Amino acid sequence: MLVSGGTVITMDAHRRVIKNGAVRIRDNRIEQVGKADELRKSGGADVQIDADGMVIIPGLIDTHVHLAQALIRGCADDTELIGWLQKFVWPLQGNFDARDGKASAELCMLEMIKSGTTTFLESLLHSRYGFDGIANSLQESGMRGVLSKTVMGLPSYGGKESIMHPGMIEDAQTTLRDVEAHFKRWNGAANDRIKVWYGARSLGGCTPELFSQIATEARKLGTGITMHLSEVKEDVKYTQENFGMMPAEFMKKLGFVGPNVVFVHGVWLTEKEWAILAEKGATLAHCPSSNMKIASGIAPIPEMIRAGVNVSLGCDGGPSNNCYDMIREMKTASLLQKARLLDPLVMDAETVLEMATIRGAKALGLQDEIGSIEVGKKADLALVSMNKPHLTPVHNPVSHLVYAAEGSDVDTVIVDGKLVMEKRIVKTLDEELVLQEANERGGKLLERTGIVISPKWPPA
Amino acid sequence: MLVSGGTVITMDAHRRVIKNGAVRIRDNRIEQVGKADELRKSGGADVQIDADGMVIIPGLIDTHVHLAQALIRGCADDTELIGWLQKFVWPLQGNFDARDGKASAELCMLEMIKSGTTTFLESLLHSRYGFDGIANSLQESGMRGVLSKTVMGLPSYGGKESIMHPGMIEDAQTTLRDVEAHFKRWNGAANDRIKVWYGARSLGGCTPELFSQIATEARKLGTGITMHLSEVKEDVKYTQENFGMMPAEFMKKLGFVGPNVVFVHGVWLTEKEWAILAEKGATLAHCPSSNMKIASGIAPIPEMIRAGVNVSLGCDGGPSNNCYDMIREMKTASLLQKARLLDPLVMDAETVLEMATIRGAKALGLQDEIGSIEVGKKADLALVSMNKPHLTPVHNPVSHLVYAAEGSDVDTVIVDGKLVMEKRIVKTLDEELVLQEANERGGKLLERTGIVISPKWPPA
Repeated sequence: MLVSGGTVITMDAHRRVIKNGAVRIRDNRIEQVGKADELRKSGGADVQIDADGMVIIPGLIDTHVHLAQALIRGCADDTELIGWLQKFVWPLQGNFDARDGKASAELCMLEMIKSGTTTFLESLLHSRYGFDGIANSLQESGMRGVLSKTVMGLPSYGGKESIMHPGMIEDAQTTLRDVEAHFKRWNGAANDRIKVWYGARSLGGCTPELFSQIATEARKLGTGITMHLSEVKEDVKYTQENFGMMPAEFMKKLGFVGPNVVFVHGVWLTEKEWAILAEKGATLAHCPSSNMKIASGIAPIPEMIRAGVNVSLGCDGGPSNNCYDMIREMKTASLLQKARLLDPLVMDAETVLEMATIRGAKALGLQDEIGSIEVGKKADLALVSMNKPHLTPVHNPVSHLVYAAEGSDVDTVIVDGKLVMEKRIVKTLDEELVLQEANERGGKLLERTGIVISPKWPPA
Repeated sequence: MLVSGGTVITMDAHRRVIKNGAVRIRDNRIEQVGKADELRKSGGADVQIDADGMVIIPGLIDTHVHLAQALIRGCADDTELIGWLQKFVWPLQGNFDARDGKASAELCMLEMIKSGTTTFLESLLHSRYGFDGIANSLQESGMRGVLSKTVMGLPSYGGKESIMHPGMIEDAQTTLRDVEAHFKRWNGAANDRIKVWYGARSLGGCTPELFSQIATEARKLGTGITMHLSEVKEDVKYTQENFGMMPAEFMKKLGFVGPNVVFVHGVWLTEKEWAILAEKGATLAHCPSSNMKIASGIAPIPEMIRAGVNVSLGCDGGPSNNCYDMIREMKTASLLQKARLLDPLVMDAETVLEMATIRGAKALGLQDEIGSIEVGKKADLALVSMNKPHLTPVHNPVSHLVYAAEGSDVDTVIVDGKLVMEKRIVKTLDEELVLQEANERGGKLLERTGIVISPKWPPA
């Protein structure tokens, strides 16, 4: 396959920006990257993709996704966090049946594809659709994904876990055996597009022993772990009061922190904790829209990057963002820090694009496989059309990607060498069917739970 | 014309949300608003617009726009303010010729139409395209707009004005006479779609006498004034050091503050100044993306609203935002305040939608004519398609408009009873030509000025 004619933003070590560039793909890997005329001369191709007027970037990597929350998009706005979870998110998610789980996961994948995301890290708390169901949908979608199932073993933290829908709580040891079984079945499946990780419930949701056990088992399998850390101040209070330590210190002491770990949010992490993440090679997945909308706080991202932490980007979920659009998330990530620090120089467009690509790849331990456009890497690409009023004229394509583009500017998506979307038409999932099912299941879910979602104004 | 089948969000005093709603338009005004089946029964229509699966909202009102900055989109990212103005914005804008001015204005209007904005307030500093040129383009675009020409008379403020491109500075009295002439020629033109206002240069850019004169002349003509106020801390320093007052106190003392005034930004306004704006009925046009990107600060908007200030919304310009998309701006406006106050309850979706519609209308003194969908008002509507993955399922359309939608979800736009865009096809401006011209002029502008805009990475 030859993709040619656009501006290639390689994100490789040289950070090349190649005008009239091209990418040649053989099977699922990138074979050549260079000038379009040179690549055209060097041979034909079975499939020719005309990228004229487009920017060709590595497929975007969303390192924090809740597939099960797409169906409850906009169901918990403008409320405080505990109410957000208790009144809306948990009762709704807790009442999912298998079809709801499928509808939500496929809706979410569809939205990610349509906004240029090729790889995601799912924090799969629970799904009645089942791990196999989600993995099957992922396989069918054509995307690349890391699926983590959350292990929890202490349903008492601050009264939060205890009110969770009972159906969502499973025995920790059972879950650990489940993850191992899922790993054996699915890790490396779909031509290596699927990876299986451990999820660890947030701080008060596991005993120290359980955190250590998760870390040990993950290391034994050679796989990763993701976990919410210091999203809320209560996390800090919990480890300080119970263990006399800050959250990341506590996790380090348990032997948990390593290059195979993606901590999420990290809003309240302190300087000495950044040093721990940096030293151990762990990643912080930053979710700016979610942190802003739920008012968790503002993570000190430029400081963490300066301290050597690998920071990636995530959209989080349907009630907290409320969309899964990495392109829009990049702008938010940049603007938020400029406003916080009153410094327009921080979080420049280049850094933010790195977070959404090569740093996301590093988060998943896939930096040698994806995250940049270079020879030998897997062919995961997004083609973004610049032929739009809001992207005209193109003085600097990196600026436009971060500050002016929106998800729907993505024209074509290639994952593992295969066309997953071409000219906005998704070729894997059936868009019309997925939307129809999501509308139906979403409506029935509200009926069944008796939860009414409406504007605060009187409806007619 | 009968627009029927979607969910009508009226934004009238009752804030009705009418499912399967309809709007009947006769000439340029709204004749009926109600349930689709009832309106269909009540008679036929020459033009039938099917709004099935869409949300019908009042056309969005952008109360702070720089038309001349669309052509220099992305030309001044990640730099500090003075450098931003000195090295990029002023030299580029200062070197515009008439064709550049036309290309930029039409590009900007095209982008606004495509993202659902029907009315804008332009801070027209200067254009070699001329006021008549801009007004002609506005007339042709089919949009509704308020054009203000900036009066300035003290080119020395903090060294900022003095380095402005010389071609951009005109004698204050000449400009005042110009505005009067433009007002006589254009105010009320194009079936009342065009209004002419005064612009006043920011605090140090006019003498106290000149501010008073602008206020007096505007009152005499019965028109409005817009002015940047307390965008930067230097504004506060300037009035305190020179006049021993805060900026809004100073402007009040000069007889400037009134219901015909739209102050822009107001980042550093204090509690007693909010009271002045509230008491005098002046508007604050909030530009969250611009304030974040240039790192001006975060305006305390929920507090101002609570103090009774009419707060509207604006996108600002191509180098400061970098786009003119009110739908995306709404989300930023909401999330920014939640993050600042660590309170997820502030700036709810309903309030933000008010800022983009009815409060924007009030800003322009047009609250009896536009800003809501009600009988007798002018027919300015935007139809937003919800038939998208990122807007599915629709539990709450107001939430989706603010938190999940993007400009390109706007399907159809009606201004003054006329179809300006139908199914994403703009019917007034020629999109292809406008984009072509903008690309050409933008490229030539950079060549002529020798300014190089590129990613910070080495280009290939």
